[in-house]
Amino acid sequence: MNEFELIRQVFMPVAVATANPAVRLGPGDDGAIQRLPPGSELVFSLDTLVEGVHFPADYSPRFLGWRGLAVAASDLAAMGADPVCFTLGLTLPYSDDKWLKAFAQGLSDAAKQFGLALAGGDTTRGPLTLSFQVHGTVPAGTAILRSGAHTGDLIGVSGMLGDACAALRWLDEPSPSHHARTLLGRYHHPEPKLTLGQLLRGTASAAVDISDGLVADLGHILAASGVGARLIEAAIPRSAALMALHGEESLAMALNGGDDYEICFTVAPDRWSSLEAAANRGELTVIGEVTAEPGLWLSDGHQDRPVHSTGYDHFGADE
Amino acid sequence: MNEFELIRQVFMPVAVATANPAVRLGPGDDGAIQRLPPGSELVFSLDTLVEGVHFPADYSPRFLGWRGLAVAASDLAAMGADPVCFTLGLTLPYSDDKWLKAFAQGLSDAAKQFGLALAGGDTTRGPLTLSFQVHGTVPAGTAILRSGAHTGDLIGVSGMLGDACAALRWLDEPSPSHHARTLLGRYHHPEPKLTLGQLLRGTASAAVDISDGLVADLGHILAASGVGARLIEAAIPRSAALMALHGEESLAMALNGGDDYEICFTVAPDRWSSLEAAANRGELTVIGEVTAEPGLWLSDGHQDRPVHSTGYDHFGADE
Repeated sequence: MNEFELIRQVFMPVAVATANPAVRLGPGDDGAIQRLPPGSELVFSLDTLVEGVHFPADYSPRFLGWRGLAVAASDLAAMGADPVCFTLGLTLPYSDDKWLKAFAQGLSDAAKQFGLALAGGDTTRGPLTLSFQVHGTVPAGTAILRSGAHTGDLIGVSGMLGDACAALRWLDEPSPSHHARTLLGRYHHPEPKLTLGQLLRGTASAAVDISDGLVADLGHILAASGVGARLIEAAIPRSAALMALHGEESLAMALNGGDDYEICFTVAPDRWSSLEAAANRGELTVIGEVTAEPGLWLSDGHQDRPVHSTGYDHFGADE
Repeated sequence: MNEFELIRQVFMPVAVATANPAVRLGPGDDGAIQRLPPGSELVFSLDTLVEGVHFPADYSPRFLGWRGLAVAASDLAAMGADPVCFTLGLTLPYSDDKWLKAFAQGLSDAAKQFGLALAGGDTTRGPLTLSFQVHGTVPAGTAILRSGAHTGDLIGVSGMLGDACAALRWLDEPSPSHHARTLLGRYHHPEPKLTLGQLLRGTASAAVDISDGLVADLGHILAASGVGARLIEAAIPRSAALMALHGEESLAMALNGGDDYEICFTVAPDRWSSLEAAANRGELTVIGEVTAEPGLWLSDGHQDRPVHSTGYDHFGADE
């Protein structure tokens, strides 16, 4: 099929299935049109995923459709934005109906779950690469930035850390165990914490999503806010599956593993209990506190040691 | 340098040099924030460019920075939007300081000229691919769509057609003639018709930018509006450079050549003279009229013959 038929047959149904009234004009014109609620601001983020870098070669197209949008939507969660719509730049080596249908299914499932309408995009021929731009809105001035952390704030995270990183060890396992399947599910099917992000808006002093690892991403908050942090080793939340399969490495995976798409945030201590009560039971964990002294320190109960990011760097590997 | 240093050293200066007050938060957080004027809507469009498909291998990075943004901005022009900002997803095989600096220079030159602030993006490692998303605004309900053409409307175009297509013949010429340099300039340095687009807003009944060729792009207006068109062969505007170097092929190039990034639009006949008076002298040409009968016809003064698009199709070539 040619490019226009491809767009119409594969992506127009996704646009129709995910349509919402804030998108005044969706795919099919020179551009799309979004209407914002009065008094709100647009929050937007672009993420690019490259085959062999951000996902394995010959990766399941259905997982890819979900994961790609989830990764991008996670940035809206970290800003506390209400999700609205997205665009997709899809570069494909060839036009494969079966691949496209599976991809569109994963994409559509994710878009419906996250409340993101497909508003437009571009399809081109070339090495498999995807760029997702997600759009959300916040009441003006309420987006959660990385730069608002204060000395004495508590540092919290959502969910469990390290699972997606550990899953990379099990991608080629022909018959994974129950625990391995749990880890794989966390890699293939990340869930951006959009509802939590909205809850954090107006409460958290800073937030970031954990895409490159806790140490690296918390490091962005510390650098932007001009503060340091002290983390409690025993508090870093790790799943039963991770502990069972990778007990010895679990701390390193939870500190430095990427792809979890949980939220790390800072909050004034007196706001913690109401925040915890409003979140899902067990969703939030205090892992440390913001310090005036720069640097990131990890306490094992006896002493503090400095920790440095070994998180993923797309350009640093060979330089 | 690593990814974060690269972003800071190469792209932050572009963001600073192009900053405008509508971008409340630029690069460096999980997302960017844009403020819209009250009563306005967001217009946005994503364009992906792939090496070897949309530009030659080893293409000048300075030209690429300009061209990539110009191609995307042209969609804002076609919608009649006021330009605001853009994001860039840049996938690079390796981190090359010299290449990046030249690219950033071309990008910065274009962004300043077009009034587009660099608001965010993503840099990844992989085959050279660029996704630009451009943002503009219009007073609510005033964007120019493809679907508004009416029977009896005049069909107009800006500028000269076919030059960029002809330039492809001269890309490898070691010492191009004056005329060839004119054509090459049109390919390397397209100028999105943003001012004209704003002028057309509220006047034109439909518009499209000419990226895939006049016949293909006018075809989008005709399909979206449910009408046909009759073009006057002798009226199709062609430059002196094109006529001098490619006289015999010039009509085919002007009808089917892409990459010109001029605007094709339709307008009620009684609005033509005021539109022409407000545009730059000689910028606009009437090339035909909208017909109730579907199809696209070309008149040579003696008879009408049907014309079909041979425009570029990224996925159609080998299927």
